[in-house]
Amino acid sequence: MRQITDDALEEIALGAAVLGTGGGGDPYIGKLMARSAMRTHGAVDLLDAAELADDDLVVPTAMMGAPTVMVEKIPRGDEIIAAFKALEKYLGEPVRATMSAEAGGLNSTTPFTVAATLGIPLVDADMMGRAFPELQMTTSTLSGISASPMAIADEKGNHAIINTIGNKWTETFARTLTVDMGCSAMIALYAMTGKQVKESCVVGTISLIGRIGAAIQRARADHTDPVAAVLASTGGFQIWHGKVGDVQRRTVAGFARGEAAISGTGPLEGRTLRIEFQNEFLIARADGETLVTTPDLITVLDAETGEPITTEGLRYGFRVVVIAMPCDPRWRTAGGLALVGPSYFGYDTAYVPIEERIKRGNGITSLCSDVGEPERVVGTTG
Amino acid sequence: MRQITDDALEEIALGAAVLGTGGGGDPYIGKLMARSAMRTHGAVDLLDAAELADDDLVVPTAMMGAPTVMVEKIPRGDEIIAAFKALEKYLGEPVRATMSAEAGGLNSTTPFTVAATLGIPLVDADMMGRAFPELQMTTSTLSGISASPMAIADEKGNHAIINTIGNKWTETFARTLTVDMGCSAMIALYAMTGKQVKESCVVGTISLIGRIGAAIQRARADHTDPVAAVLASTGGFQIWHGKVGDVQRRTVAGFARGEAAISGTGPLEGRTLRIEFQNEFLIARADGETLVTTPDLITVLDAETGEPITTEGLRYGFRVVVIAMPCDPRWRTAGGLALVGPSYFGYDTAYVPIEERIKRGNGITSLCSDVGEPERVVGTTG
Repeated sequence: MRQITDDALEEIALGAAVLGTGGGGDPYIGKLMARSAMRTHGAVDLLDAAELADDDLVVPTAMMGAPTVMVEKIPRGDEIIAAFKALEKYLGEPVRATMSAEAGGLNSTTPFTVAATLGIPLVDADMMGRAFPELQMTTSTLSGISASPMAIADEKGNHAIINTIGNKWTETFARTLTVDMGCSAMIALYAMTGKQVKESCVVGTISLIGRIGAAIQRARADHTDPVAAVLASTGGFQIWHGKVGDVQRRTVAGFARGEAAISGTGPLEGRTLRIEFQNEFLIARADGETLVTTPDLITVLDAETGEPITTEGLRYGFRVVVIAMPCDPRWRTAGGLALVGPSYFGYDTAYVPIEERIKRGNGITSLCSDVGEPERVVGTTG
Repeated sequence: MRQITDDALEEIALGAAVLGTGGGGDPYIGKLMARSAMRTHGAVDLLDAAELADDDLVVPTAMMGAPTVMVEKIPRGDEIIAAFKALEKYLGEPVRATMSAEAGGLNSTTPFTVAATLGIPLVDADMMGRAFPELQMTTSTLSGISASPMAIADEKGNHAIINTIGNKWTETFARTLTVDMGCSAMIALYAMTGKQVKESCVVGTISLIGRIGAAIQRARADHTDPVAAVLASTGGFQIWHGKVGDVQRRTVAGFARGEAAISGTGPLEGRTLRIEFQNEFLIARADGETLVTTPDLITVLDAETGEPITTEGLRYGFRVVVIAMPCDPRWRTAGGLALVGPSYFGYDTAYVPIEERIKRGNGITSLCSDVGEPERVVGTTG
């Protein structure tokens, strides 16, 4: 167990956005909420999953909805407490700790608000090792753990408890309630035992994103390349560099969907990368060639500062580097690909692990390697 | 308290459809479910509201959704028990009795399934004195009683508890969940004390619909006019007679919406009555003249048998009589009209009580009175 202070929170929020693959909400909002709660209630204790007793009760907390809306409708902070407490009351037993549902921008830090406000620890883990757009997309689902009973709350004082026969049903019900609640809501779900956390979750996520954030900050301070620092700390590969062109966005059924076009620069001049997203970046293609697909991670970084850019933050003219990172190995199983692979999202493309794609080489990645040899240091997730 | 047997259930289901104003679901399905539960578990005790202790806990139960769908997706019966039990568990105290939410076809009899199966009494009351399409449209809402916490369950084993800051929010959340659940669901809501039942509900509804049903059956047995029997037992007025022409139906956002055209016969030859509905019949107009609007009751009866016809049962060529009945006086207050008056449903028509419209007379009603003088005997509701 170690204490998370203001400084560590900055690093966590920054690193979270790298694994957030453009989604998971604006890290700035999550950080503000968490910082405010920590200043009022004190620092948050980060608990190793191994420190949990097997029968401890853990309840992850998160924001649900379209990040595009979340930017305009900033949570007050008490709606996530309302969701957590509604579920705790429904379960009828005290919850030992909260946890991040995903390693996304907002959702890595929102549970800090719960932990600080209620004086409970935060488990150093998440259920994705990245961000994904739907709530059944967790390694815990792969282990047969139920997302429900689940609580959902809005800022007006409404809340609901959902109890389903499957995690896809939980997603369906929670998504329509989120739309009714104004396209963003706070949720508490996947109540599980310490044993289940250890067996089903991606452990060490908060520490990992803290290290990624620290590496970016160090590079900025040392005037070295922050993009290289991200690649080194994530085991990622640079797959593109260029200038953001058209970005099309629409909010559909509570999701932020769209596509960004990134015109290549340098040796990529004249070619265009197209990245499609549904809250998160899902697939990157150039001239008909697939460079990377879900469940591997696609992240857009500011070329200068290494700052990860969310789907809603993408603007015309930004100079960016696009990187790809290997996902948790559980996502590469048949069950994992059925849940989050390209075909789930409607892409008629076979999943090929990013390391394979890089090893095989192709016109694009060889062009990219001209501007910085990809370097693999550590796996992104436990 | 008196016992409801199979025969009484027949009368209740028949009379319920008269006050159901075309909605509230198919009375046949509700009756089948109730009869099956009563044959397995025994007769149901009907409890006068006055017999309730002030602190007794009462939980009304009902079906929610589009009746057009309900006809194809017949409830098994245990989903309504699931909804009731989910709410009882959530409330954490034993429920003394259940009640009908509305005097509609299906929803007058569905609570009999709960009462019989669980061996609890049914209160002789409802919250509308008729059927209405949305769940905040109750006299209990007018008395400031919360519809939530509310439970909603489907036939697949999913359920949810909704907790809102207002009954319109409960309607919103429950409606979208109903759509997710396949456009029909079972609900338990408006948990209230015996005191609140006595003060806020329309009492005596089950007895009233039993009397209406008995009057129709008696007329059929005696070969007298069943339509006249309905008018006599409800204080209603005949406003049209004719042949069903076009019926347009669409299922929108969990509602059965549409319009039926009824060509006049006899002295009404050459004129057409148009009735619009949203689950229930809401407004009847002929040649630009409004004959009756919500919250007064509009019911379509088979001209021969006096059988009430639901919106989904209307078919081309049926010979029908259209009747109008005065609503509970609480619906005629400013608060009542704001909740269920013509303007709520988007009609730019002032509400005029049906007795007033008849007294003023007009071209249409005088034509109708040619074929049977309207006769007012009793008010429809307590």
